[in-house]
Amino acid sequence: MAAASNYAELCGVWSRLYRFNHLSAIVGWDRNAMMPPNGSAARAAAEAELQTLIHRTRTEPRLARLLQAAEQERLTDLERANLREMRRDWRDANALPESLVEARTLAGAKCEHAWREQRPANDWRGFLENFREVVRLSREEAHLLAAETGLSAYDALMDRYEPGVRAADIDRLFADVKAWLPALIARVQAKQRSEPAIAPIAPFTIAAQRALNHAVMELLGFDFAGGRLDESAHPFSGGVPEDVRLTTRYREDDFAQSLLGTIHETGHARFEQNLPREWLGQPLGNARSYGIHESQSLSFEMQLARSRAFVGLLSPLLGKHLGAQPAFAADNLYVLFTRVKPGLIRVDADEVTYPAHVILRYEIERALIEGAIEADDIPALWDEKMQALLGIDTRGNYRNGCMQDVHWTEGAFGYFPSYSLGAMYAAQWFAAMRRATPNLDQRIAGGDLAPIFAWLRENIWSQASRWDTPELVMRASGEALNPGYFRAHLENRYLSA
Amino acid sequence: MAAASNYAELCGVWSRLYRFNHLSAIVGWDRNAMMPPNGSAARAAAEAELQTLIHRTRTEPRLARLLQAAEQERLTDLERANLREMRRDWRDANALPESLVEARTLAGAKCEHAWREQRPANDWRGFLENFREVVRLSREEAHLLAAETGLSAYDALMDRYEPGVRAADIDRLFADVKAWLPALIARVQAKQRSEPAIAPIAPFTIAAQRALNHAVMELLGFDFAGGRLDESAHPFSGGVPEDVRLTTRYREDDFAQSLLGTIHETGHARFEQNLPREWLGQPLGNARSYGIHESQSLSFEMQLARSRAFVGLLSPLLGKHLGAQPAFAADNLYVLFTRVKPGLIRVDADEVTYPAHVILRYEIERALIEGAIEADDIPALWDEKMQALLGIDTRGNYRNGCMQDVHWTEGAFGYFPSYSLGAMYAAQWFAAMRRATPNLDQRIAGGDLAPIFAWLRENIWSQASRWDTPELVMRASGEALNPGYFRAHLENRYLSA
Repeated sequence: MAAASNYAELCGVWSRLYRFNHLSAIVGWDRNAMMPPNGSAARAAAEAELQTLIHRTRTEPRLARLLQAAEQERLTDLERANLREMRRDWRDANALPESLVEARTLAGAKCEHAWREQRPANDWRGFLENFREVVRLSREEAHLLAAETGLSAYDALMDRYEPGVRAADIDRLFADVKAWLPALIARVQAKQRSEPAIAPIAPFTIAAQRALNHAVMELLGFDFAGGRLDESAHPFSGGVPEDVRLTTRYREDDFAQSLLGTIHETGHARFEQNLPREWLGQPLGNARSYGIHESQSLSFEMQLARSRAFVGLLSPLLGKHLGAQPAFAADNLYVLFTRVKPGLIRVDADEVTYPAHVILRYEIERALIEGAIEADDIPALWDEKMQALLGIDTRGNYRNGCMQDVHWTEGAFGYFPSYSLGAMYAAQWFAAMRRATPNLDQRIAGGDLAPIFAWLRENIWSQASRWDTPELVMRASGEALNPGYFRAHLENRYLSA
Repeated sequence: MAAASNYAELCGVWSRLYRFNHLSAIVGWDRNAMMPPNGSAARAAAEAELQTLIHRTRTEPRLARLLQAAEQERLTDLERANLREMRRDWRDANALPESLVEARTLAGAKCEHAWREQRPANDWRGFLENFREVVRLSREEAHLLAAETGLSAYDALMDRYEPGVRAADIDRLFADVKAWLPALIARVQAKQRSEPAIAPIAPFTIAAQRALNHAVMELLGFDFAGGRLDESAHPFSGGVPEDVRLTTRYREDDFAQSLLGTIHETGHARFEQNLPREWLGQPLGNARSYGIHESQSLSFEMQLARSRAFVGLLSPLLGKHLGAQPAFAADNLYVLFTRVKPGLIRVDADEVTYPAHVILRYEIERALIEGAIEADDIPALWDEKMQALLGIDTRGNYRNGCMQDVHWTEGAFGYFPSYSLGAMYAAQWFAAMRRATPNLDQRIAGGDLAPIFAWLRENIWSQASRWDTPELVMRASGEALNPGYFRAHLENRYLSA
């Protein structure tokens, strides 16, 4: 159809980008999981050449005209959704002058590089010297993106990670959570004080843990004909939808870190492996947003894997692969996997205290981007909020306080809310599943995970980027994101007998 | 220097190509060593996109003008050598019309695909139907390359693999070998009939073989900070000079295949790992020719690894990793590793009978490209030559006769001589080393391989593509390629007490 020839030409461009991104994903996985140390300089040069090529493709001058012309063409609904995603991708690449992107990337890289030494040295003053520049450039980015999109500065940053979700939404959600979370944490801790657990006896050989992880991935439906599990210093889910590359890391003194990490990444992987094949190669076929992706990993790791029913499935697998021991009894495992303890570090937090870590970061980064505070004000605010939300004193502890994450260091503002959105979406998905399948926990306990996979496939995986995030949530669960499901989930798991 | 600005511009182009080829090498290694089966369609599309990009870069119209202009510029000797290699690479990409390259690639792929079934079915008639087209298009290629280079048709094909070596050279070398090889084989077989060997007792676990291979690679100087050993169905040496990726394959009933294969690939790897760092990124820094590369793998696998002295080093390593057994005694291992037996299959041949397999292929493929014979004539010629050279009857056995190799199937004519050139070069290198280090075998027996590595580094590795092959041979060993060294090596190893 000649009427849609501009659209067709755009599809050709994004097809090429899909293939270039495939190369980038595979060599990136290789760099993290396989590459020997002396390969890094040549690899950096090759990857930079590829990124230049991808950037040039996304910023070809003719694309502006093609996008505008295609938007006037007669398109199907799916084509129109695809075109909307093309424009999002195009805007990401074209909204900012190249000089600003380069300056921000350089400032972020410089800050991150120094941070590797400054964080262990607790050197907040030194860090500030680089970080002020990162903040300055990130604000400039935010204001340019805001001008381009008509959003507020912080919304414009967050829209890159969570399309359609605004700070006003986050304010509403987090105000709700803040109203009940501190009291909930206190009640859970009081209850758990009378629930002792038997500690697992290490060591666990890496070969045995690997076999255990493979068995659990099979149980969770990972398709090994279209993916692999390997190892890397920082676990991730990489590769491409047709060939998903997961990594984990092993410690002989702790099987749980690798097991639960693998389950988390398997959630990401099943989303990728079940994106609609016929849309792959076009932006429409990409997984929707960081928060929705995280809702899949947390559906697997938190909603499913730490449920009593699923722990009952894990118990014999642990015995089989790691050797039987009293700690692996289902009841004891459940106590171990649901232990709640406020702490300094976000990435080590349990699912009950985790939102507190995200809320304080959101409040600080939003004020920072909006200019209401300066970088120098962060430690005092950090301490005040940690005290209020988790009752923890962080004065003078920059290292395990406001210097603990790499996100701000690199200038990734607007990302943190995705973690808690993911947890809330996941709770909402499982509430919807339980309405559809009232005996869901009995099914899980019997080893039948099909209702979960079917629901996720129909409502999330198969939808890819067809809708923006709020519409996807509405269509999947029948209502807008409602933090009540997350609260009910926590109260049910952590406060009921 | 403005005088060399065309040259500088060309260096920029070949730098980009180097980086694109890096991506191609890593994803190619991944495809063979890591990729799960369902990843192949998306990978093929991504690799094809990259090959298109590389082809476009090598055929940019401005390159013809730049090359001509650069050839008039004031350049150093090294720059001139680099420019010569750029022109070779440019000619490879530009000499043939794209339609012909595509037709030949398609015909080769079709023939190879059908051959996978036709070979086990011994279906020569079916094979011929596709193969005639491969021959027709390869002849057309050869004639166009000949017109472009001023060489004869066969020389033009061979020059892609062995620059500067001509059929007249091969005729001289192979006539010499044919004059003494059949009698030598007969004498070796007669001698070996009275030299029984103890067979190794399997199985050998793959983990133990892997540890053994790593230990032997360490002994051979492989740099694991700049490379890896993995597994693939068809072993190869891949990756890039800064990050060499070797593969092997394991059978629990035979450690020797994997061990000697690994040693072979380690020879290729050390060449790549020791190319001059300051030339990497430019054609000057590439390893010289297929034959010279094979001379490194055969220096390691044949000249060194099957020597009495080195077998003395291997013996305790086998005991350590695979468990001691009588077959691993040095004297017995040496008998096992130097067994000579004429057979049907080239890739299974020992170093004494191997040249016969190459000579017959060379004679047939040259006549075929020159039009002196047709594809239909191959089986009769094959049988006649196998009979004359090795005393083996191949009548009606196409499968393990003229259908055994993938080279012709895919249209890779002119490649086979490189295998025997490699064996002859390797013998000539070791003769030169022994002149330089008269007690070489004592040094090897004592575990000191430094004189070998130093000689190869100085004479071969560090020279990269600075000279064409005949000049490299002259500079390295003081004379042109002389098959007398290969003969003396075989007589010394296989006929002396």
